Amino acid sequence: MTESFSMSLDDSTPFDDHPHEECGIFGAYVPGREAARLAFFALYALQHRGQESAGIATSDGIAAYSHKGMGLVNQVFNEDNLRPLHGHLAIAHNRYSTTGSSHMRNASPYLIESAYGPLGVAHNGNLTNTAALRERLLHRGAGLNSTTDSEVVTLMLAAPPQVWTGVDPDVSSEQLDLWQQRIRAFMQLADGAYSLTILTRDAVYGVRDPHGLRPLCLGEMSDGGHVLASETTALHTIGAAFVREVQPGEIVKLDASGLTSVTGCAPRQRALCSFEYVYFARPDSRLEGQIVHGVRQRLGRQLAIEQPADADIVIGVPDSAVPAAIGYAAQIGLLYTEGLTKNRYIGRTFIQPDQQLRRDTVRLKYTPLVDNLAGKRVVLVDDSIVRGTTSGPLVALIRDGGASEVHVRVSSPPVRHPCFMGVDMATKSQLIAHRFDERRICAEIGADSLGYLSLEGMLDAINEGADQPSGHCAACFSGRYPITIPAWLFDEDRTPQTAYGQGIWAE
Amino acid sequence: MTESFSMSLDDSTPFDDHPHEECGIFGAYVPGREAARLAFFALYALQHRGQESAGIATSDGIAAYSHKGMGLVNQVFNEDNLRPLHGHLAIAHNRYSTTGSSHMRNASPYLIESAYGPLGVAHNGNLTNTAALRERLLHRGAGLNSTTDSEVVTLMLAAPPQVWTGVDPDVSSEQLDLWQQRIRAFMQLADGAYSLTILTRDAVYGVRDPHGLRPLCLGEMSDGGHVLASETTALHTIGAAFVREVQPGEIVKLDASGLTSVTGCAPRQRALCSFEYVYFARPDSRLEGQIVHGVRQRLGRQLAIEQPADADIVIGVPDSAVPAAIGYAAQIGLLYTEGLTKNRYIGRTFIQPDQQLRRDTVRLKYTPLVDNLAGKRVVLVDDSIVRGTTSGPLVALIRDGGASEVHVRVSSPPVRHPCFMGVDMATKSQLIAHRFDERRICAEIGADSLGYLSLEGMLDAINEGADQPSGHCAACFSGRYPITIPAWLFDEDRTPQTAYGQGIWAE
Amino acid sequence: MTESFSMSLDDSTPFDDHPHEECGIFGAYVPGREAARLAFFALYALQHRGQESAGIATSDGIAAYSHKGMGLVNQVFNEDNLRPLHGHLAIAHNRYSTTGSSHMRNASPYLIESAYGPLGVAHNGNLTNTAALRERLLHRGAGLNSTTDSEVVTLMLAAPPQVWTGVDPDVSSEQLDLWQQRIRAFMQLADGAYSLTILTRDAVYGVRDPHGLRPLCLGEMSDGGHVLASETTALHTIGAAFVREVQPGEIVKLDASGLTSVTGCAPRQRALCSFEYVYFARPDSRLEGQIVHGVRQRLGRQLAIEQPADADIVIGVPDSAVPAAIGYAAQIGLLYTEGLTKNRYIGRTFIQPDQQLRRDTVRLKYTPLVDNLAGKRVVLVDDSIVRGTTSGPLVALIRDGGASEVHVRVSSPPVRHPCFMGVDMATKSQLIAHRFDERRICAEIGADSLGYLSLEGMLDAINEGADQPSGHCAACFSGRYPITIPAWLFDEDRTPQTAYGQGIWAE
Amino acid sequence: MTESFSMSLDDSTPFDDHPHEECGIFGAYVPGREAARLAFFALYALQHRGQESAGIATSDGIAAYSHKGMGLVNQVFNEDNLRPLHGHLAIAHNRYSTTGSSHMRNASPYLIESAYGPLGVAHNGNLTNTAALRERLLHRGAGLNSTTDSEVVTLMLAAPPQVWTGVDPDVSSEQLDLWQQRIRAFMQLADGAYSLTILTRDAVYGVRDPHGLRPLCLGEMSDGGHVLASETTALHTIGAAFVREVQPGEIVKLDASGLTSVTGCAPRQRALCSFEYVYFARPDSRLEGQIVHGVRQRLGRQLAIEQPADADIVIGVPDSAVPAAIGYAAQIGLLYTEGLTKNRYIGRTFIQPDQQLRRDTVRLKYTPLVDNLAGKRVVLVDDSIVRGTTSGPLVALIRDGGASEVHVRVSSPPVRHPCFMGVDMATKSQLIAHRFDERRICAEIGADSLGYLSLEGMLDAINEGADQPSGHCAACFSGRYPITIPAWLFDEDRTPQTAYGQGIWAE
Repeated sequence: MTESFSMSLDDSTPFDDHPHEECGIFGAYVPGREAARLAFFALYALQHRGQESAGIATSDGIAAYSHKGMGLVNQVFNEDNLRPLHGHLAIAHNRYSTTGSSHMRNASPYLIESAYGPLGVAHNGNLTNTAALRERLLHRGAGLNSTTDSEVVTLMLAAPPQVWTGVDPDVSSEQLDLWQQRIRAFMQLADGAYSLTILTRDAVYGVRDPHGLRPLCLGEMSDGGHVLASETTALHTIGAAFVREVQPGEIVKLDASGLTSVTGCAPRQRALCSFEYVYFARPDSRLEGQIVHGVRQRLGRQLAIEQPADADIVIGVPDSAVPAAIGYAAQIGLLYTEGLTKNRYIGRTFIQPDQQLRRDTVRLKYTPLVDNLAGKRVVLVDDSIVRGTTSGPLVALIRDGGASEVHVRVSSPPVRHPCFMGVDMATKSQLIAHRFDERRICAEIGADSLGYLSLEGMLDAINEGADQPSGHCAACFSGRYPITIPAWLFDEDRTPQTAYGQGIWAE
Repeated sequence: MTESFSMSLDDSTPFDDHPHEECGIFGAYVPGREAARLAFFALYALQHRGQESAGIATSDGIAAYSHKGMGLVNQVFNEDNLRPLHGHLAIAHNRYSTTGSSHMRNASPYLIESAYGPLGVAHNGNLTNTAALRERLLHRGAGLNSTTDSEVVTLMLAAPPQVWTGVDPDVSSEQLDLWQQRIRAFMQLADGAYSLTILTRDAVYGVRDPHGLRPLCLGEMSDGGHVLASETTALHTIGAAFVREVQPGEIVKLDASGLTSVTGCAPRQRALCSFEYVYFARPDSRLEGQIVHGVRQRLGRQLAIEQPADADIVIGVPDSAVPAAIGYAAQIGLLYTEGLTKNRYIGRTFIQPDQQLRRDTVRLKYTPLVDNLAGKRVVLVDDSIVRGTTSGPLVALIRDGGASEVHVRVSSPPVRHPCFMGVDMATKSQLIAHRFDERRICAEIGADSLGYLSLEGMLDAINEGADQPSGHCAACFSGRYPITIPAWLFDEDRTPQTAYGQGIWAE
Repeated sequence: MTESFSMSLDDSTPFDDHPHEECGIFGAYVPGREAARLAFFALYALQHRGQESAGIATSDGIAAYSHKGMGLVNQVFNEDNLRPLHGHLAIAHNRYSTTGSSHMRNASPYLIESAYGPLGVAHNGNLTNTAALRERLLHRGAGLNSTTDSEVVTLMLAAPPQVWTGVDPDVSSEQLDLWQQRIRAFMQLADGAYSLTILTRDAVYGVRDPHGLRPLCLGEMSDGGHVLASETTALHTIGAAFVREVQPGEIVKLDASGLTSVTGCAPRQRALCSFEYVYFARPDSRLEGQIVHGVRQRLGRQLAIEQPADADIVIGVPDSAVPAAIGYAAQIGLLYTEGLTKNRYIGRTFIQPDQQLRRDTVRLKYTPLVDNLAGKRVVLVDDSIVRGTTSGPLVALIRDGGASEVHVRVSSPPVRHPCFMGVDMATKSQLIAHRFDERRICAEIGADSLGYLSLEGMLDAINEGADQPSGHCAACFSGRYPITIPAWLFDEDRTPQTAYGQGIWAE
Repeated sequence: MTESFSMSLDDSTPFDDHPHEECGIFGAYVPGREAARLAFFALYALQHRGQESAGIATSDGIAAYSHKGMGLVNQVFNEDNLRPLHGHLAIAHNRYSTTGSSHMRNASPYLIESAYGPLGVAHNGNLTNTAALRERLLHRGAGLNSTTDSEVVTLMLAAPPQVWTGVDPDVSSEQLDLWQQRIRAFMQLADGAYSLTILTRDAVYGVRDPHGLRPLCLGEMSDGGHVLASETTALHTIGAAFVREVQPGEIVKLDASGLTSVTGCAPRQRALCSFEYVYFARPDSRLEGQIVHGVRQRLGRQLAIEQPADADIVIGVPDSAVPAAIGYAAQIGLLYTEGLTKNRYIGRTFIQPDQQLRRDTVRLKYTPLVDNLAGKRVVLVDDSIVRGTTSGPLVALIRDGGASEVHVRVSSPPVRHPCFMGVDMATKSQLIAHRFDERRICAEIGADSLGYLSLEGMLDAINEGADQPSGHCAACFSGRYPITIPAWLFDEDRTPQTAYGQGIWAE
């Protein structure tokens, strides 16, 4: 079951059986302060959303500055390269880690000189019609340097809007600035998921796609200025007060006049990614008016209602499943405790275990707490099962630790469908629930019983505390995508991440 | 209270108000396997004991090989520098991170050519008569390259034993090999704490001081050979079965004949460091027959008995105080939950917050879970308070998160005395409990109430599950040191770490 | 006179009083061989033309690959980054070193994805209408990533030619491929100096501006295929036979059909840079049918005829003025010998001399050979004087070495005008011959006499061995520019290198 | 003939057929100045003596400081690591580059804490009884960290002198300080070549072996203080006035009292290495009262007398043979000119030529100047032939360049014997003149004729300008060694560089 060992013990690896968020983004207009410094600490707080590369671009109203690099934010930045990033305007970006295709060329933010001064873009999400947009750009004579959506967005914004829409920008109903017109033109053409922060010489913009697939929130600094971030935890970290979320289809502008908002396009069916609640977002972040940690506790409670177990103790897979395990235990009236210790010094290692160690690589990351487990019937709560590669070894480890029974409970439904909207989920054939039914999965992972939360249960638990009757994207569970996905993207074993620039950027 | 901001947000910094373990050590004699590869994964499991530098030295019975460097073990090693470390014998070392005095020269293990072939030493602990031993070495004409005890031990072992003892080695009662004679001569002269792994061309030795101040355990590989490690978690990680602890005063030898043991010196009053239970050891490690996680839960239970609180919920400071908090909650019958989220992407950052961010640096590391805290009377369990620099900001943060009351409970007694046996505790004047009584500390940190565990309570909870009527060092709580400390070391604001080589190694 | 000390002792620094060549370029279509490996050794041979950065881009007919970085070619490349550059097509580039404005973003070659596959450009020279071309690109909506002409050329080639010319490409008279049409459209618009190597998926192109301002030659591999290089020395290094120079206005194409040539634009007055003969080109390179070393000897002979000196020995400033000194000595019948030793371990140092050492920094690079100089009347031959910053210290050093008289002879005319065609000469106000007449310069540098070669003498010596009645650009000596220079570029203290992207790329 | 291709095109490689100097050393006592900064520029001037590693150790009278690293001096040092090297006392060291055995552990200077404060040693030369001295050290119980003689010297100096001599230091005849006594004890025991600079807390010492095998000179700063350096060119570079050479057997001391001198041991037959004149020393250095460049010109003149040639022009292999070629041409009355261009951007490259390029690797470094060579009968002067690996390709290259005849003349005798006194010459079997007679060598290298300088001719030319009737070591030519060489060192294919620490430092 663990035949293909991954060299990395990092959270962002196949050994960790989770999908990968594409990015975390940030933007700031903060008069009198160095926006780059705030951006650094915001990226630090958003590090869980992307560990491949980090970057910051700033403007002081005259010139623009940028630095980016491969690695964690505290590996990429030091005082020597942060200090030259002058100015009170900034955008910033964390990009997630893939194997092999990661390249400096794809680091963000993407910053260019345009006819109207500097233009930079940080993007979270995935456009679903990138191929068509790239084609249009190339045939206009644009040259593409990377395989990122960020570059596509930037180059579309660099051109006059009528190039894309065929008509002069409609400026009758309201007064739009140059960039708002271009952003609006882009929104007319782009399909898919995008939360954007955009830097120009004098303003920072925040944009969210009409479905609101990826989060983006707005904060206010006590000493003036506003900020944008993928999650509210970044606001907390830098001392900003939470104002509200950017609305689906909205364009907010932060500049010397403060905060202004215009409609970029008409909002459509709300479809915030439900995996943000299940796993991605930091537990202390606030989405739709509720703290994620609380939602995860509710998911655990609902799971206990739907999938009870006759057991002695409840443990969670550290660290992401702990809130659900606490909720499960409280609901069912069992003792919650810790049953597995995880090596905190995560990070990439390039050392290959020898043959004997490979037989049991789960030991390199987890240790069972034998005193807590010995002779116990254990409920092991996990937040999700994607490829199913770690569940088996974990169940075996808990049995090794002395547990008499292991009942696996999952605080989300079976993942059966790939994501095309900004999550690196796996290809269809890699999804264990695409290949097997629950009984077979239970056998594969060697559990005494296995229970998933139902789709309805999950959505109800999410909606219960939300500040509005909110729609959520659950396509990876249900197969019902909020937007039309090009047929070719459904090809087995192909993901948007590897679809473009083939034959050009071959490394 | 947080006037002096530390640049680092790492666990191993003043912002994290914990003492620092000096080191983790490892040794292996594993026929047919590459000992360096096992050593790598063992160091990885012992990373919490030292993050400054890492090193491995090996022997293949003919030649010796070594590599060491500054940083975490997965930063120091890659396949290119690990592969040349041939052989089935290895010792290895993690060294902790200090500010400023860290230097490549002090990285371990220390490996030399001796008259009898290669000789390497990895050391955990602190000798208390290093100054006198260095003096003796220098006046013999030895040259010292570093300020480490490891070098002192190595050079003492390199010389014939009669040089130190003045008499020929006593070999009447039993047959000692060359190195055992030298180790025994060393043990006659050395005072203080030392757990050692020693590499020669053909054997690996494990040694523990007569008090057993620092841990050292012994494991067996299923396919032959033995290993030594500071903690049992390293055994689990590399698939070794736990055999037993090395005894105080014992010398174990791992070589082609298997495992042999001789007495190095007569054991004295047992004095395993109680802080290993309170904070240092990984919760999944086994000490004196009991899993540390279980001891910490008992410390929490005892704390609840001694220092109850009228409250709604119990939370722990993540991650180290969580077991005690679970125990406290279970004992007192309150709901255990999470109240603070900690940024998992710890690691050194060299970026200085600006003036506004400095007011509230605790936010850079922790976020309160407001839904869990709002309107609640909260018991905040911490495992220890050393300088007291983080408790105040944490209490304030929890109040910001909506808590109506914050009752701080500490699962160890007040720390009032420095350690001279291998822990970087702080100088006396920096210890908040040395300066203030508990009422004043409570006021300083802004808590509604403050309660420490009693010394007796702590020792009882530790002893309860131990496999022998064991003595423990609690000098940092009680001031009663198991060994005589040279008077000059008691000087205010001076620690053993900075006492030697002044005027030579000035950087 | 040496008030402003440069930190660098490198050849490419103000302490070395020479103008700087902008670049060396290379291109190869070599079936059956790895073009990148040839490109590496070619860049190695062209290192004198640029030391700031180096880069190679390749194509294997399917995909394109590239690597570039800051530093010398052997610092930028190793087997690990060279090996992935597959394919039998390559272009390559060395860029020269400036102080401050050097930046990874400006490293070449510039490689993009275009509508017709990969497109890469390596450029030697300077366009004089870059500002206008950038403006056109930006207003089409292109985004610019750098301040290089290479990017401007690449993006112009990426767009359909009619975008720039306003008319459909004229394909009546001959059959032009897609890229030849675009190159021709570019040549219609571009002013200034450009030698280009261009990479597409299936072909490599070589282009030279209609004046032939910068050199470009063509070679043939014995085992098939052709190469392009700035200088013939690169052909020799990689074992290619010299074929001919690329003609002004010509477009050559190297592909599976071998070598083909079309006219890109009508050639204008030939104007090969005369400084290539005076200083830039390697002495072993062949230009216009003659070896540069021989031309420099002739310049020295002509200098002896025009500016004889009553002296005992002739020495040259090593290494560039040695051929002229040999020629001077042979013509006038004096002994040629060496009088100065130069530290061969050139390279950037970032160590500042202390106050005393600064008084005499010439010593850090040169030592007088006192036995050769003592009591002698010395002719010191230099190839050129630009800022005049080193001549004074050298004269003083030779006097220190015991010379009784020092007569400075310069094998080129006074440099009085800046270059706008690809040479980083200095701004007008920095040119000593712009500020002072020869008598004053002689006094400033403390020589007993000073003599420059005449403009006519220089041009005659150059033409004497040339294979055609060739025109040369001598604008820096005469002020007669072969092309119209925009008025704003004449501004004091401004050079093309710093003119663009201000307010965007502020670092 | 070029079967074994070396990857490196550096001067310090087999492709460059020269022996390798072991080291350059420096010492300074310069009140009121930062000695490290002077040391840096001195190392820069001595770079030709060693390119593997560089290091500086300093003292400010209180503490000692050091930094060393692999690479050229300007790669090892920057302001950040130089600035902390406080103090007005310094020693410094350049070490030469070998293939494979180079290791950071062997970088110099070696600095330790001794019973009397810091002690550092920089060493140029090779002891011939190192094996015996290491044995004595190890059996005293010293531990050795490296395979360098520097460590051996340091550890011998660290011990009381009676340990080595068996008697109390003789202090009757004159007043020796502690370190002078120890240095004298060392000199009693050590055989072989050593020039040393030694750093203690308060003084810098300079020491030269009784034969004076390796050079060491003394300089005075105009603003006070003295310096020591391997060659006078370093004095010139840092503005020091040449005082005199340190005498064979002498110990000079630089401290607050100025310069003092004592006899370390009785001088023996003078034996300065004649290869310093032939190749090693910089041409601008002064040895025994004469400038090396002048000596090389005389070697060339004598060569012309002994080995005339009927030819048209005289050229030298650049750069080292140029002075001899100038002398040869002047003596015989032929035109001296340049016939080969050498790529100035030397430095290590790790890129392997492909199969075709390997056939003719000499092209990667040299280009013939065809206009100078065409149809000419050429005398090619080289300074020495060691392995004979480059002479053949160079002759072929000159023929390719059009020469009708090539007459090779060598300004030193055939090298037939290895060196054991500090020069990495090659093993006996690798020396072409050990294997073949001159007729055969001439055939092997494809020359029309070959002529070596006679031993007597060489020694006469050297002695002619020397300030004393001086003896020189010419063992590599004559086989007459000035000191007894242990028999085992004569083993074929074994050099002192690889003789020690086998089985310990195996990497």
